[in-house]
Amino acid sequence: MDFNLFILGLSYLGTFSFAISGFITASKKQLDLFGAFVIAFVTGLGGGTLRDLLLNTKVGWLSEPTNVYTVIAAVILAYLFKKQFVRLRKTMFLFDTIGIALFTISGLQVAQQYELNSLYLVLFGVITATFGGAIRDILCDEIPLIFRREIYATACILGAVSYLGFESLGFGLILKTVLSCSIIILVRTLAVLKNWSIPVVADDSE
Amino acid sequence: MDFNLFILGLSYLGTFSFAISGFITASKKQLDLFGAFVIAFVTGLGGGTLRDLLLNTKVGWLSEPTNVYTVIAAVILAYLFKKQFVRLRKTMFLFDTIGIALFTISGLQVAQQYELNSLYLVLFGVITATFGGAIRDILCDEIPLIFRREIYATACILGAVSYLGFESLGFGLILKTVLSCSIIILVRTLAVLKNWSIPVVADDSE
Amino acid sequence: MDFNLFILGLSYLGTFSFAISGFITASKKQLDLFGAFVIAFVTGLGGGTLRDLLLNTKVGWLSEPTNVYTVIAAVILAYLFKKQFVRLRKTMFLFDTIGIALFTISGLQVAQQYELNSLYLVLFGVITATFGGAIRDILCDEIPLIFRREIYATACILGAVSYLGFESLGFGLILKTVLSCSIIILVRTLAVLKNWSIPVVADDSE
Repeated sequence: MDFNLFILGLSYLGTFSFAISGFITASKKQLDLFGAFVIAFVTGLGGGTLRDLLLNTKVGWLSEPTNVYTVIAAVILAYLFKKQFVRLRKTMFLFDTIGIALFTISGLQVAQQYELNSLYLVLFGVITATFGGAIRDILCDEIPLIFRREIYATACILGAVSYLGFESLGFGLILKTVLSCSIIILVRTLAVLKNWSIPVVADDSE
Repeated sequence: MDFNLFILGLSYLGTFSFAISGFITASKKQLDLFGAFVIAFVTGLGGGTLRDLLLNTKVGWLSEPTNVYTVIAAVILAYLFKKQFVRLRKTMFLFDTIGIALFTISGLQVAQQYELNSLYLVLFGVITATFGGAIRDILCDEIPLIFRREIYATACILGAVSYLGFESLGFGLILKTVLSCSIIILVRTLAVLKNWSIPVVADDSE
Repeated sequence: MDFNLFILGLSYLGTFSFAISGFITASKKQLDLFGAFVIAFVTGLGGGTLRDLLLNTKVGWLSEPTNVYTVIAAVILAYLFKKQFVRLRKTMFLFDTIGIALFTISGLQVAQQYELNSLYLVLFGVITATFGGAIRDILCDEIPLIFRREIYATACILGAVSYLGFESLGFGLILKTVLSCSIIILVRTLAVLKNWSIPVVADDSE
């Protein structure tokens, strides 16, 4: 129970952090406050929304208004303290990384309620973690960042696969969640520090 | 009954007007006739489609073919009389403004069938009214106009909130619909005439 | 039974071919391997996914993992043998054309399970065949190609309409499928060879 509450709290922190990052992107595009809210919303909740649409189930944030209030709070705070948030880039990176870790594992856990094979579980974990940012970039008329740089998605895939591995070893819910989230956070942080990347499929034929 | 028919008629007029505006946007992008039809379709019916997908319900235009015929008629007329439509810009603006007013309130009314709290009702009103145009702009490789200019969405929010206010005061269906639509039309028209806008979240840190 | 298996096999070939075309587009945009996989996935399976979302039914590839494995295989092969695939442009064009023919008719057949009128059946056939490529282009920050060039979509519409015509004449499943697919393949091939196109709705008023 306490652990679930802890996870839930961290998940709102993830949404909050994603929403802030959406707001900052919007501000670079000179959007107005409504546009910034929409971008913050889709960044924070778009990945889970796409997952729920594909699973043909009720969209999560429709039954949990706290998600929507979290986005609204993030937009208000970001509007008032934008300079501070931009300055807090390292803290934001940490939030964002915790966010993708939790979104990957929680997305996978949601998908597990639908009797899908492991391939799909990993897929829905990654979709939950990465498509909020992808929709943000599409709305801002950019090619999604996660298709181009860093091993963002790879970290999510590794985390999702290890979660399933730990599960097959019989690890408890808390242990496998903490371990697989840690793997995502570690890989992503190392990737940024060491400038790792996965191969670009450049068009060398031209 | 007569009033419902009146509302339905105006709603088709809204779809028609949105579809024409989609066609005109498409013509600026040198699309072919099929592309123009797709853009007209998503502009006219995309907002309601997104609302229905998020509510996990049957997409409205699947059970009411008149919506699709309206789009087809708009495309044919716009193709034949494009110059006239472009010249009729003020009339088109009026149709478009009536369109967003009706879409906001009818979107809210559809959402009311799903036992959602007021926050969601306003949200779905605004989504119905604004996301058709937003999808049009994404397909045409532009940042959605409603994220950048005018207080288009703000007018919808004000209208949706006042509808709920009138409802809590016990106003009848006709009265609250007419009043809240009038508010949207008034705010939007004044905003354009007076050049009102809401704050841009410009990135002044760079 | 044998015919169904034949159709199913050709449909995987269609997905495979679409996925390869997605990969090649991704490589022109300097995406990384994850991005290329996403683009290959949406090109191969996005049209059917949109159809299933609009029909409010379970997304097809969730119950048939072979579709997902086909995309994975296409990405691996395209990564290893990209130069060969680019060189095999004519073969790829053939696969692609067979792909849209089969997607049009199979999309229409799926929609027939939902008691929709003919207008919708044609619409869902065309959506299944063309929106994978359209989503690919949106993700790659381009105006969808099918909105601008060739009579790609027109070929699909002609094929879908003739399928319904053959059906009303009492033709059997095999005969009407083969004939209508042939029409699509023929029209599309002739259109490319003869450089046919449908009218552009150019904005001549400026």
